[in-house]
Amino acid sequence: MPRLSLPHDPPKGDLLHFLSTKTPYESARVILVGCPLDMTSSFRPGTRFGPNAIREASWNLESYSHTLDKDLEELPICDLGDISLPLSLEEALREIEGSVSKISSNKKIPFLLGGEHLLSLPAVRALKAFYPDLVFLQVDAHSDFRESYLNASLSHATVARRIFEELGEGKLIQVGVRSWDKKEREQALGKVKFLGETPPGSLPDTRSCLYLSLDLDVLDPSVCPGVSTPEPGGWSFKELVSFLDLIPWERVVGVDLVELSPPYDPGGISALVAAKVVKEVLLRIAN
Amino acid sequence: MPRLSLPHDPPKGDLLHFLSTKTPYESARVILVGCPLDMTSSFRPGTRFGPNAIREASWNLESYSHTLDKDLEELPICDLGDISLPLSLEEALREIEGSVSKISSNKKIPFLLGGEHLLSLPAVRALKAFYPDLVFLQVDAHSDFRESYLNASLSHATVARRIFEELGEGKLIQVGVRSWDKKEREQALGKVKFLGETPPGSLPDTRSCLYLSLDLDVLDPSVCPGVSTPEPGGWSFKELVSFLDLIPWERVVGVDLVELSPPYDPGGISALVAAKVVKEVLLRIAN
Amino acid sequence: MPRLSLPHDPPKGDLLHFLSTKTPYESARVILVGCPLDMTSSFRPGTRFGPNAIREASWNLESYSHTLDKDLEELPICDLGDISLPLSLEEALREIEGSVSKISSNKKIPFLLGGEHLLSLPAVRALKAFYPDLVFLQVDAHSDFRESYLNASLSHATVARRIFEELGEGKLIQVGVRSWDKKEREQALGKVKFLGETPPGSLPDTRSCLYLSLDLDVLDPSVCPGVSTPEPGGWSFKELVSFLDLIPWERVVGVDLVELSPPYDPGGISALVAAKVVKEVLLRIAN
Amino acid sequence: MPRLSLPHDPPKGDLLHFLSTKTPYESARVILVGCPLDMTSSFRPGTRFGPNAIREASWNLESYSHTLDKDLEELPICDLGDISLPLSLEEALREIEGSVSKISSNKKIPFLLGGEHLLSLPAVRALKAFYPDLVFLQVDAHSDFRESYLNASLSHATVARRIFEELGEGKLIQVGVRSWDKKEREQALGKVKFLGETPPGSLPDTRSCLYLSLDLDVLDPSVCPGVSTPEPGGWSFKELVSFLDLIPWERVVGVDLVELSPPYDPGGISALVAAKVVKEVLLRIAN
Amino acid sequence: MPRLSLPHDPPKGDLLHFLSTKTPYESARVILVGCPLDMTSSFRPGTRFGPNAIREASWNLESYSHTLDKDLEELPICDLGDISLPLSLEEALREIEGSVSKISSNKKIPFLLGGEHLLSLPAVRALKAFYPDLVFLQVDAHSDFRESYLNASLSHATVARRIFEELGEGKLIQVGVRSWDKKEREQALGKVKFLGETPPGSLPDTRSCLYLSLDLDVLDPSVCPGVSTPEPGGWSFKELVSFLDLIPWERVVGVDLVELSPPYDPGGISALVAAKVVKEVLLRIAN
Amino acid sequence: MPRLSLPHDPPKGDLLHFLSTKTPYESARVILVGCPLDMTSSFRPGTRFGPNAIREASWNLESYSHTLDKDLEELPICDLGDISLPLSLEEALREIEGSVSKISSNKKIPFLLGGEHLLSLPAVRALKAFYPDLVFLQVDAHSDFRESYLNASLSHATVARRIFEELGEGKLIQVGVRSWDKKEREQALGKVKFLGETPPGSLPDTRSCLYLSLDLDVLDPSVCPGVSTPEPGGWSFKELVSFLDLIPWERVVGVDLVELSPPYDPGGISALVAAKVVKEVLLRIAN
Repeated sequence: MPRLSLPHDPPKGDLLHFLSTKTPYESARVILVGCPLDMTSSFRPGTRFGPNAIREASWNLESYSHTLDKDLEELPICDLGDISLPLSLEEALREIEGSVSKISSNKKIPFLLGGEHLLSLPAVRALKAFYPDLVFLQVDAHSDFRESYLNASLSHATVARRIFEELGEGKLIQVGVRSWDKKEREQALGKVKFLGETPPGSLPDTRSCLYLSLDLDVLDPSVCPGVSTPEPGGWSFKELVSFLDLIPWERVVGVDLVELSPPYDPGGISALVAAKVVKEVLLRIAN
Repeated sequence: MPRLSLPHDPPKGDLLHFLSTKTPYESARVILVGCPLDMTSSFRPGTRFGPNAIREASWNLESYSHTLDKDLEELPICDLGDISLPLSLEEALREIEGSVSKISSNKKIPFLLGGEHLLSLPAVRALKAFYPDLVFLQVDAHSDFRESYLNASLSHATVARRIFEELGEGKLIQVGVRSWDKKEREQALGKVKFLGETPPGSLPDTRSCLYLSLDLDVLDPSVCPGVSTPEPGGWSFKELVSFLDLIPWERVVGVDLVELSPPYDPGGISALVAAKVVKEVLLRIAN
Repeated sequence: MPRLSLPHDPPKGDLLHFLSTKTPYESARVILVGCPLDMTSSFRPGTRFGPNAIREASWNLESYSHTLDKDLEELPICDLGDISLPLSLEEALREIEGSVSKISSNKKIPFLLGGEHLLSLPAVRALKAFYPDLVFLQVDAHSDFRESYLNASLSHATVARRIFEELGEGKLIQVGVRSWDKKEREQALGKVKFLGETPPGSLPDTRSCLYLSLDLDVLDPSVCPGVSTPEPGGWSFKELVSFLDLIPWERVVGVDLVELSPPYDPGGISALVAAKVVKEVLLRIAN
Repeated sequence: MPRLSLPHDPPKGDLLHFLSTKTPYESARVILVGCPLDMTSSFRPGTRFGPNAIREASWNLESYSHTLDKDLEELPICDLGDISLPLSLEEALREIEGSVSKISSNKKIPFLLGGEHLLSLPAVRALKAFYPDLVFLQVDAHSDFRESYLNASLSHATVARRIFEELGEGKLIQVGVRSWDKKEREQALGKVKFLGETPPGSLPDTRSCLYLSLDLDVLDPSVCPGVSTPEPGGWSFKELVSFLDLIPWERVVGVDLVELSPPYDPGGISALVAAKVVKEVLLRIAN
Repeated sequence: MPRLSLPHDPPKGDLLHFLSTKTPYESARVILVGCPLDMTSSFRPGTRFGPNAIREASWNLESYSHTLDKDLEELPICDLGDISLPLSLEEALREIEGSVSKISSNKKIPFLLGGEHLLSLPAVRALKAFYPDLVFLQVDAHSDFRESYLNASLSHATVARRIFEELGEGKLIQVGVRSWDKKEREQALGKVKFLGETPPGSLPDTRSCLYLSLDLDVLDPSVCPGVSTPEPGGWSFKELVSFLDLIPWERVVGVDLVELSPPYDPGGISALVAAKVVKEVLLRIAN
Repeated sequence: MPRLSLPHDPPKGDLLHFLSTKTPYESARVILVGCPLDMTSSFRPGTRFGPNAIREASWNLESYSHTLDKDLEELPICDLGDISLPLSLEEALREIEGSVSKISSNKKIPFLLGGEHLLSLPAVRALKAFYPDLVFLQVDAHSDFRESYLNASLSHATVARRIFEELGEGKLIQVGVRSWDKKEREQALGKVKFLGETPPGSLPDTRSCLYLSLDLDVLDPSVCPGVSTPEPGGWSFKELVSFLDLIPWERVVGVDLVELSPPYDPGGISALVAAKVVKEVLLRIAN
């Protein structure tokens, strides 16, 4: 091989990341992290493929929103990629908790891309250490408030119950719930603050810090078919975006978007809807 | 092999049946029967896979409805499985008629899971023997009122005409029809009672017994793409459920849900929608 | 082989064409032409399969519309099949321009089935020679008004800009646009007449000849998932049909329907929606 | 609209036809006819979409074969398109018989693109009138020799039995059969000439005219998954082509290729394999 | 409702079961049990849908085999349906162990339809109590012999290691393994008896009882794409059937067939291949 | 928000890269680069999704090969991610040429993941500057040696012709070609060195530097259905791996793997096969 001197810069290349998120970790304010947790789904598994499906779909979108007159290109966002998760559920949850804890300790906002809904639990645990008055705002077709599910205390169907136990009375707000187990409902009624099945006109005033958890199955299956547990009769895309406009973003200290299961939408619309929801959140939160 | 004594009960196992339908035939009030009839579809065949697809999807749903505060677990429903159908259309129709006749003679309500729409004809024939004033209430995107279709007098496109001939004037009510053949419409106008293309606000008073026939293509293809003859511009899922609330269930003596064609919805949303419609009907009819 | 005399007519057979379009070119008033142009899509290619997918799906529809009380069977429409396109973009555009020019010179209305949106440019060029005051009415989720895209001046993302340059000020009307590049929007604001993101209640009066360009991505992805660049938050099928009722059809001298990408909708609903839009346009334009 | 003179030739356009088959009927020697018969399939319907799927896939192939040093472009082949079939099975069979009869009476070779296997019956009936010593050479995973199937005497599972009754002893040759009903096998053993489950090294000498019937399920499901009744353990593509080289093509007076069911192969490989088989047959038969 | 007497027998209907398996549990010799275990898959989950997909596909097959001249119809086989599994892995394994134990105690042969490969562990545990010299014969593309995988000791990738610990030296035979982790291979070499990557010509003589575990990924992905962990370069279907002919079936006291993941094969060939393997095993084992 | 000190290391996360390729560019010897070029495909576009589909699938594989007793973990490989490509074909080719040039100038081996086959042209141009005696070894079902295709001189169907013009007589070796245009074949016969349609037993001796170009369509469509231009009758996976063993890897200075089109294989087997081919090449080349 001929001798040649080394050029100063290597050829450019990009590993798959969310659209227009090129800020280094140090100077970013919002940190996207993929959490391909996919262990307890009882119906249609596949959420492990969610984070990269969202990233790939995002490149179909414009980085700009004329409604908000803002552009992702100008916002301090870093996409860290995916966390490596062990196969033991307990260890996987610890891994997620550790990552979120680091991001919070750096005064950045973690935005977790799921993965199944159970990932909210370790995220909440991590954030509670920094924000003791944390409120969990859950947008979801299901209450996920069972004491246990198929004999297991940790699952996508019990996550809100566990978070309730973590945060205490008055800290759990749910909106969009349209499907219940009978016993689950009886137990939830006094403990959870319900804002209705359809999108509410306003949110209750709060001075607490907020964790926003978006389960994509709040959308109607026609809008977002590729989720683990689709439930007919849900929100339209526009209704979800309007709901986002009600949120006091300056109080939000953590976000997740969960339950996308790409194998169940071969046409790929669901990942695209998920990516646009991520974009709409990022534009609102990442000032 | 070592000698061992026989235990009293064999190991437990479940063959695929609709969610929470474990009542024995004798004590059940509503009888689910699969009718995988799939012979005359002119566009997208595959309805033969409908009944089991609905059963499989049903396990994604909760058995409880908080709106009605009722639970399938507590209702007397039996899932008989599928009828075996011969390949001759005439014989297949006789087979269905015989099954429905037995169920009716036992004073139970048959709920047929299709299969193509033509199965309503033998069901109506069987029920008319028990309920001479039977009214056929058809929820459908198409009138199915042709004299003949592609030279055949028995098909999914002529079923309502044949039923009209069976039941006589004033016994055929249609709602949701949004697509017509020109001649078919001219012939239907005087004979069928039309309640409009969009969901009506009320149903006409009746003292007759009712047969409810739900063709899934009344729903918009975005809501339920996997049907034999999708027609853009249809109902939402919520509109269909609201319509169910208009029905005088105490008069309903037979039901069918037809035209699901699972191969045309690889994401499986359509079977899920079908299963939820079945659940909503069962909760209302099976007291 | 035995000697036999030649019968007078060969056996009948039909090559795939759009439903009920059997008028010979000479006596037809509207000419359907497939344009499988598919070169510059940046996201989900496959529009080359659009024209035949629309033709195949059309056979699922009735030729009659009871709303309009008209039947395709009675209208003078010819389906020419697809234009053969070379692989060079410039030559392909010239080929399309030549075809449209011939059709217009015969005082017939060309209706182009895409294919990607860039095909509107040669169609407009051809028509402008016959109708110098031509107005371009674009129904689309995107403005397609970039100066250039990925360094290219000719693409689906720049087609409206090139048409603006062709037709001049005041000749470009857009409706349905809900996604923008920041710079594109700044440049478009003074030059394009915008009728809003949601369907307008009326169209501005005009005495000009109109070219109607229908990009299927104006529809919500739940309604029409199989497009090149889906954008959540769009129109319903009924909204699009209502919009068609606003159009002064007697002024329309050319139409296209673009951006269907069948491989991205394995259930085939999108082609069906496209076919029904074509039917609705044909019934209105082909008197 | 400005007055313009009519140009001499309309713009060129092509309706979907098989690759390089542009000879007019009158001067063609081989006539491709689509027969979208799809009524009696007991497992995976969809063969009605076969003919156009084969035509579309064919455009991916070269028209030339270097092995044979022949080119479809130079051969006298006409693609008639599809026959319109009524919904009544008996009438549909009569329609096919009539078409084949016309083609044969013109001393041309019919090549039927299925559609389900039952279409061979009317084709054989038509050809027998011209070639009384006709031999039916069936390449198939199944013998299709049942007396009746699901109570029906006319079906894809009885077609060979009906053809045997039509042609008489010694006129039915089968190769590739690897799946049997027990009783069917007992009845077939004395009546059908079997050449083995795997491709034979030679064919028996014959002076008879041959009808070649190619059921695609003779291929292994890995090679051609999109068939109505796939049966694991079949031929490779190369084995099928080698078998074609054994056939005395100058004696072949009719061909069909049946049982492609495109909806069951979303990747489209099966239609491509079917198209290449059609090409290989055409190159050998159409001198 | 008119009074009518109750007929003696209810209408007939069949819940989905494997082809021609209607023997009651008491008189059956082979017991099919579905085990929809699907918790530890690291790549493509979905094995929970395996058992019913196999049952549905089986109806495409003939019950007869002319090679063996035997018919499923005449064999004493019972399909119990699926075991209900809790979400806790440990409890799920206990449930499976209990079911297999009951079947064995009744001197019947359990045939488990997976579900993921880990289900072999509880099956082996149950059988070892009855057959202390049990040998585990594993047909698989992977050795599954890791000490732990992603920090977990119980998973589809460690199942053979756990079974080795259960059965002891010399009791583990593997064939077909073509993919290894480096460390896994070092540890397996002295402990497992390997019969090669390609199908062997014979099996070692043994007087032990055998448990046969068939992981479908031993087949090439072209033959059976819908598995959790496909590995290019595997067996053909015929090679697998030939291998079955080597097995001393009179010694086999338990069987499983695992790792089918239906969502990853939309054309359904994989379930069909799985069903035919089940048929071939049943015909050999159920005398 | 509470004041907190910044921890020393940010949370760990991984953007999608090929299995076990974590060496920094500076110390790597083989450089993976994604080239999502997808502009000139005439049949089934989608190769732009190839590179990330290969990366995602690679995680299903073991990093170790027991045949070679080597492990990717121990090899100096860097995955740069994808090159950003402009929409102008000429500029895109220049961009690829520049990247390859940089990698070569650093005395590293570029391994391009396609994308369509045309990307070999700029890669060869870049490498020729460093290795003037470069030989192009093409494994492909097609010769790609047309003078022009659909009027274009730059396309996947002309790339070998352009490379021939670049490298000169005797520098172009092709193996696996089984489909030709008639004229293309006449022109290629004297100029290209053909090693046969089936895998050869040996390669000709050479002292030249080699560029290895692997078009996945050399494999049979059953093995790798998701390619742009599938051609029935190709190689098995094992045949391709055996061919790799013939190559004098110490002479290889560049590699590409092209034509994967993931949308045409919804089950994902093709991406997995592609990933395993990449693994097999990396283990052989990256010492």
